Formats: sequence, structure tokens, C-alpha cells
Amino acid sequence: MIVTGVIFPVREAPIDIIALKSDMQARANSLRHQGKTIALVPTMGYLHEGHLSLMRLARDMADILVVSLFVNPTQFGPGEDLAAYPRNFDHDRELCMGEGVDILFHPEAGNIYEPGFQTFISLEKLPVYLCGASRPVHFRGVATIVTKLFNIVKPHVAVFGQKDYQQLMVIRRMVQDMDMDIRIVGGPIVREADGLAMSSRNAYLNSSQRPAALSLSRSLQQAQALLESGQTDVAALIASASHLILSFPETAIDYVAICDPDTLENIKAVTLPALMALAVRVGKTRLIDNTMLVPPQSATS
Amino acid sequence: MIVTGVIFPVREAPIDIIALKSDMQARANSLRHQGKTIALVPTMGYLHEGHLSLMRLARDMADILVVSLFVNPTQFGPGEDLAAYPRNFDHDRELCMGEGVDILFHPEAGNIYEPGFQTFISLEKLPVYLCGASRPVHFRGVATIVTKLFNIVKPHVAVFGQKDYQQLMVIRRMVQDMDMDIRIVGGPIVREADGLAMSSRNAYLNSSQRPAALSLSRSLQQAQALLESGQTDVAALIASASHLILSFPETAIDYVAICDPDTLENIKAVTLPALMALAVRVGKTRLIDNTMLVPPQSATS
Repeated sequence: MIVTGVIFPVREAPIDIIALKSDMQARANSLRHQGKTIALVPTMGYLHEGHLSLMRLARDMADILVVSLFVNPTQFGPGEDLAAYPRNFDHDRELCMGEGVDILFHPEAGNIYEPGFQTFISLEKLPVYLCGASRPVHFRGVATIVTKLFNIVKPHVAVFGQKDYQQLMVIRRMVQDMDMDIRIVGGPIVREADGLAMSSRNAYLNSSQRPAALSLSRSLQQAQALLESGQTDVAALIASASHLILSFPETAIDYVAICDPDTLENIKAVTLPALMALAVRVGKTRLIDNTMLVPPQSATS
Repeated sequence: MIVTGVIFPVREAPIDIIALKSDMQARANSLRHQGKTIALVPTMGYLHEGHLSLMRLARDMADILVVSLFVNPTQFGPGEDLAAYPRNFDHDRELCMGEGVDILFHPEAGNIYEPGFQTFISLEKLPVYLCGASRPVHFRGVATIVTKLFNIVKPHVAVFGQKDYQQLMVIRRMVQDMDMDIRIVGGPIVREADGLAMSSRNAYLNSSQRPAALSLSRSLQQAQALLESGQTDVAALIASASHLILSFPETAIDYVAICDPDTLENIKAVTLPALMALAVRVGKTRLIDNTMLVPPQSATS
């Protein structure tokens, strides 16, 4: 028998796909019983380089890396893009395998929210600002699903992207307020070469909308440049950003805000590092971006 | 040296008093790491035989028995008896030692609710009924503090009294909805010899109010007797109970209800086991009681 052209298969790391929360919780208990630490990266799938960067951060923080993939209905309001939200499970699974993910938790909505479900976690202040103004149930849904995922996956550490800055702040506050024994880590925004912040919703953009989408990151860069040139007035900085964004067709501003990075309350002048955050519709696609505006140090001015 | 009258001290079980949530959580982690199971009985102190019965139930369910003693401000509404709520820590500690409690967790409010606290857990349906109608923030406060205690003490099992039936239902539902990996056990109502349900608030009653306070348990007994004599109409059963209660001076009815024991929704006739629950003010003291009304089996009627 002559064997020719033997191809050794690429040995990908094994990955467990778990669909039921009861199975995931039992696995988490077993892992903790063995003394293993668990890191969780919660996602809604349609993974991109931004998600993968969070997985790489998390991979080094615990023995076992769990990625959850669940498009959570309770954080979408009426008329939002729940049904249209992009999905590609097979590709997501391959990307997770490439990052050394141990467990991909991929439940159905009917398993996560059982009949009679009626319990929600909500925050009184942080959700009032920024995205919460136009998405009134969004952060209640986020806080609720994240709490459920924490109780199901039982992580020691969980990693969230700073692109969803307000979400990260809501989760940090919730974890502190509820005494959840979980370390929360924020991962930096990952951008395309042209500056567009990575987002699953970028898949909605057609080629003519792409330049308009760039107005988000460009307006943030412009604000930092104006600040460095001496413009500290928030109203003026917001006016310049809005002018740039609206110079592109198909854009509509949801908000452009400069605020206290801890409380998210509006400020009048940038004398300390401040969060600049914006949400803009490009056609039907709602995009968000943010950056920390850092005023030039008074010592060097 | 002549020693006379040596008295060997009674060897009481050692009990750890823990005041800080960070210490309690660290202890819980250490215990779980050692493979120990933890049972929790949450209380507001001023312990009585009802609490002790819950401790005895819990004592047999886990290696380590933790009792929390915390008068939780967020479950009291404006004008309720937060400041006046009875307290006797030394006596409570002695009672806990007598029941073999391992850890008494006794935090200050400022340790439990830190500056900037803004996160609450609430349920959409169960709190609408019974006590929730006149105490609109009560069950939000209960669900929130119980979640915090669960995250601090990390119990495998927690025991609550059936006297606070609605509270027990709220906690069971919350635990299911939030995927909390904790077994919830309800302990039966403990009564004085005359039928009065044990309550820390019974301490408020003066001797002339005591007969009026007995109207609660008596009206429940009367309803069961009427049901057994063939009266299944809820309106008639409630009218009889109300008549009995209001025949005593100093009583004012908050509610008398007969409802579905799972949903707490009102029913019209008792054809299946039903919850009868009531809240009555005797002077300034608000008392509650409940029982399961069980219709005579059709097979034996």
C-alpha cells in the first residue's frame, strides 16, 4: 500500500459548544470545583477584530475562556434591529477556535428567558445619559442579561469593549452595587485602517455610506485637535463635531456629548480628561464611537 | 490552694461575628474553596422562635450556617418604621449561638450601600399584589438586598419564612429568572400558643391590643372552617374575615385577599388550594398573616 500526499490536518484547539444554561452552569461548577479560573467575553456574535481583541485579553487572565454568543432581545427596543441583527454562527465558531476559546456558550432565547420571566436589574442614573436617552430599555436589558450570564458562567473576570463605554460603566457600577465577585476589564476600541470603529453593524453600510460613517471618528479626532489648540468650550467643540458630521449626506445625529467620564453628566468646559461620545445614524444604521478628550497639561501650555 | 465551687462554664459553640462585606465574601470564598457548603438565613434581627425554626432547618442543610442580621433601609418606604424597628444585638447573638450558627453577618448600612449606589432588582408582576399595593418600593428593596447578600455570603441554600409568603414567592421567582444557583427553602409559620404569628413587630403591641392582633389568625381559621362547610365564594369568605377583624377596636384592614398561590392574582371561588393573606393595622402596628385554604376534596364530600 502506497500512501502519497499525506496531509496532516491542522490541529485546531478543541472547543465545546454549550447550548443549555443548565449545562453551562454545571460545567462552571465543575471547573470551579477543580480550582480553575474562568474568563468570560459576552458577545452578540457576528464577531470582528474588536471581539477577538477582547478574547486575547481574556485568554491570559484565566484558565478557561468562555465566549457567550447571544443576541439578547431584552436590550432591543420596539422598532430596533433585533430581527435584522447580523448572524453567522459557523464563522463565529471558527474565529473562537482560532483564539483558543475553550467554551462557546450559544443558547436560544427560549432557554435564557423562560415562561413567566419578570425580573430586571436597572440603574437609576447612568442609563439616563447618552444612548439611554433614545434607548430607554436598553441598559435594563444589558444589566439583566449580563447578570444572568454571570450567574450561569460564573466567571472570575469578564471583558467588555470600551466602544460601548456607557455599557462598560453600567456594568462596573452594577457589579460594585450588587457585590458581584467578578473583575471587570475594559478593552480598547479597535478601528479599521481608515479609523472606523469596528462594529457588527458596519455590515449594514453600503459603499456610498462608508465615507459618512467615517465622520464619527474624524469628529472625535477634530475635537481633540481643537482642544489642543486651546478650545475648551464644550458647546463649541460639539458644534464643530456636529458640523463635520452633518456635512455628509445620509447622517442624522442622535447625540454628540462631552461629559464626566465617571458620572456621564454633561460638563461645560474640558479642563480635565472628559468623555466625548456620539451616536449617529448613517442611513438606517446607528453607529456609536467615543474617545477620552485629554486637555494639554497646564504645566506645558 | 483550695478551690471550691468550681463552675465549669457551659461550652457554647464559637460564633464568628463579621461586620464587613469584604470579610464575609472572602470567608465565603475560603469556605467554598475548602469544599464546604453554606446555608444562609437572612434576618432583620430581634430574633424570635420563627427565626430560630428557620435556623434549625438550615443547620441540617449545609456545613456552615450563616445568619445575616441587617435592618435593610431600602425595603422601608417613607413613613414606615425603619428608625423604630426593634433591635437587640446581644440577645440575637446569644440566640444564634444556641442554634449552632457559625457566622453572624452584621454589617452597617454604610458598608452595604456605598456612595453612588444606584442599582436595583425589581419584578414586574408579583410585587403588584398584597403587601406591594400599599408598600410600592418594599419588594424592590427586598430583591435588591437579598441579591447582595447572596453575592456576599455565596450560599448553596437559603431559608425564608412562609409568614412573608409574598416575599418568598418574589425571591423564588428572582432566583429562577436570574439563574442564581441557590436552593430556596420556605419554613412554616411559627405561632404563639394563642395563634398569633411570631413577628418582631409583635413587640410593639400593648396588652390591650393583643386580643385585636389575634383577629388575624382567627379570621384565617374561620375562613377554612367556612370553606369546609361549603362556602367557596371568595367575596363571602373575605366579608366574614373582615367582619371578624373589624369587630375589635383599634384594627384597620390593609387587605384581606384570597388568591392564586403561584401568581397571587385574585380568584373568585376556592375550588383548588388558595392563599389567604391579610395585613391589618392594630394601632400603629402593621401585622401580616396567611394560610393555605384547602377545599374539602370532592371525593370525600
